[in-house]
Amino acid sequence: MPNISNKGVNMPESPIRKLVPFAEQAKKNGAKVIHLNIGQPDIKTPQIALDAVKNNTLSVIAYSRTEGSDIFREKIAAYYSKNDITVNSSDIIVTTGGSEALSFAMGSIADYDDEIIIPEPFYANYNGFATATGVKVVPVVSTLENNFALPPIDDFEKLITPKTKAILICNPGNPTGYLYSKEEIKRLSEIVKKHDLFLIADEVYREFTYDNKEHYSILQEEGLEDNAIVIDSVSKRYSMCGARIGYLVSKNKEFIKTAIKFAQARLSPPTYAQIASEAALDTPQSYFDDVKEEYVERRNTLTTELKKIDGVKVAMPNGAFYCIAELPIKSADDFAQWLLEDFRYKGETVMVAPAAGFYATKGLGLNQIRIAYVLDQESLKRAVTILKEALKSYIG
Amino acid sequence: MPNISNKGVNMPESPIRKLVPFAEQAKKNGAKVIHLNIGQPDIKTPQIALDAVKNNTLSVIAYSRTEGSDIFREKIAAYYSKNDITVNSSDIIVTTGGSEALSFAMGSIADYDDEIIIPEPFYANYNGFATATGVKVVPVVSTLENNFALPPIDDFEKLITPKTKAILICNPGNPTGYLYSKEEIKRLSEIVKKHDLFLIADEVYREFTYDNKEHYSILQEEGLEDNAIVIDSVSKRYSMCGARIGYLVSKNKEFIKTAIKFAQARLSPPTYAQIASEAALDTPQSYFDDVKEEYVERRNTLTTELKKIDGVKVAMPNGAFYCIAELPIKSADDFAQWLLEDFRYKGETVMVAPAAGFYATKGLGLNQIRIAYVLDQESLKRAVTILKEALKSYIG
Ligand SMILES: Cc1ncc(COP(=O)(O)O)c(C=O)c1O
Ligand SMILES: Cc1ncc(COP(=O)(O)O)c(C=O)c1O
Repeated sequence: MPNISNKGVNMPESPIRKLVPFAEQAKKNGAKVIHLNIGQPDIKTPQIALDAVKNNTLSVIAYSRTEGSDIFREKIAAYYSKNDITVNSSDIIVTTGGSEALSFAMGSIADYDDEIIIPEPFYANYNGFATATGVKVVPVVSTLENNFALPPIDDFEKLITPKTKAILICNPGNPTGYLYSKEEIKRLSEIVKKHDLFLIADEVYREFTYDNKEHYSILQEEGLEDNAIVIDSVSKRYSMCGARIGYLVSKNKEFIKTAIKFAQARLSPPTYAQIASEAALDTPQSYFDDVKEEYVERRNTLTTELKKIDGVKVAMPNGAFYCIAELPIKSADDFAQWLLEDFRYKGETVMVAPAAGFYATKGLGLNQIRIAYVLDQESLKRAVTILKEALKSYIG
Repeated sequence: MPNISNKGVNMPESPIRKLVPFAEQAKKNGAKVIHLNIGQPDIKTPQIALDAVKNNTLSVIAYSRTEGSDIFREKIAAYYSKNDITVNSSDIIVTTGGSEALSFAMGSIADYDDEIIIPEPFYANYNGFATATGVKVVPVVSTLENNFALPPIDDFEKLITPKTKAILICNPGNPTGYLYSKEEIKRLSEIVKKHDLFLIADEVYREFTYDNKEHYSILQEEGLEDNAIVIDSVSKRYSMCGARIGYLVSKNKEFIKTAIKFAQARLSPPTYAQIASEAALDTPQSYFDDVKEEYVERRNTLTTELKKIDGVKVAMPNGAFYCIAELPIKSADDFAQWLLEDFRYKGETVMVAPAAGFYATKGLGLNQIRIAYVLDQESLKRAVTILKEALKSYIG
């Protein structure tokens, strides 16, 4: 029997995957499970995008252009320009989700055993892409006490070695919900320029910022043109996660030329999804205003209710639609499984994502969970009540 | 300025890419360019697939299941069973094109610097996926004189080292059109079992076999269950290359479990494309019969006409829709560019793919071109006439 690769052995499983069978069993046993564990918004996809696909007149679903069509990329550039970011269509590669953009970025800048520094907790799949491309993730700790703000720049500096190729941030953050300030971006900008590193910013949640805070993109930072690589995606912005369209954006020509070679190997991004995404760019501002309002209310409901529970600490998110909560328990892993296996409140239970999977440092985040507030407020309220009752019973 | 990776530098460009600007210029200058260079069929996508997308009733384009839905995979398993291949839905992972299936396969079985043996000439993007995942391609030569049949098994044996993880074949072949016989598959089967290697068969052209020759899949080979990995795709089968749906198929549970971890990192395959692909599985047999008939006629026309040209040798393809022709010239690269820049026959010229890009061994295939017969017969005839006149003028 042939062996699978070490890479394959080390490839991390999704932090939620091992809970899935327990959730399925719970449902089979008649329980209602409220899902706080996934970043799949319940928001309707813009009608304009749905219609574009339904009204398409293609008769041969042909390969499209590797980097996305000129027209599509020009419309994307116009989107950025409306958001005070000046890029050309030639600075943009259309990818199969932000996921593929991440893979191409890592492959284009880092070789086997090279290092990328990432503030933790971070989007767990960064580990997967890093493992697949042979890159080492070097974490730098951010803390709930500080709302997951940027760690001191010295903490980054200490970790830089000749193998360091980039710093990767997620802004606003999954799983933290933290929105980096302009000053924090400037601090990062200085350190990457000083050490000739790339700064990769995963900005897939760029539209989801609250409390009148503005998103400051690394693409707005002057003098950072050669270092800045942005990961973007239509998945959350237009609630079309299943389309699988993202973008890679950089003004570094050499980088774009290289990433296109990675893109060529896989031929082209999905055609129907590009039709939907191009149309989605015409979504009226009112759609986003409504969505934002909805998320702010959900966040307020969620955090207010969570804070009422004895021993629970919550970071206050200013962006995205996740928050991390610390629970008065030892193992969120065990608690999450127990919720699905053994706990019911009025026939319901909740599924949460244990946060340890978002940390690279072993032992961190063990008593934390990530909650995605992608549900209506009624469900969120019930979910928090269930958590409260569950904690009582679990601790007691 | 930060550096891109060595991997990025070494990432091969598509063999056709550098000709693209010349083709564009030729068109700007008013020439008609007949494209013999791309594997994008002109065949209509089955109506049933087009309709399924147009009639979809989704209102949230959500992430789908990482490995494809149960129903879709069960339908795929039923497709294989109709083709004398017994697999379960759990042996199948739905991927974003055969391209992604190839990436997942390489990542799951080979680590940095490990080796995969591939008969050359081969599908050029194998180089890209290998480079991206850090795997070394070790070529074994097949020749036009032998119609690109399987090289002697000794030639493989000589190349096997402790780092060899797999043999990868394309059956039927792009760019060769060669269809491996059952005996050839059995020979490969023996050697991979002897050395505990994986046998990866790229069977994306499995339906395109001619002259009453039957495709023999590695999944039909008894005792090869632990070694066999099949790459498949709807791209060519249903002329829906732009959908971006492929499959990874294996009865090796450990392999599938590992590949799913790679799939999890990128979340899910495209939703609209899955709707189209699931519907495409109900395409009536008459569609394939018609398509096959059309390709056989095209192939016959093409090869008959090519052989009439002085000094041109053609391998006779039994499958796929490519053939390799050897021309009485030194550099097909130069000739291909000259066709676009300097040659016109009645206002037309042709674009061909120089075959050197399909060889890993430097210096091989320099006087060969790959022709994709994905055009109507009239165009093919005109294309061969142009080639004939061009050769006269180029050599003279
Ligand atoms: C931070 C972050 N980046 C990237 C992605 C990938 O998204 P997609 O591939 O759907 O664009 C996600 C999805 O949840 C995410 O949360
Ligand atoms: C031999 C071979 N394998 C794989 C592919 C990838 O196709 P796709 O990713 O569209 O399934 C192609 C496309 O031309 C091919 O010729």
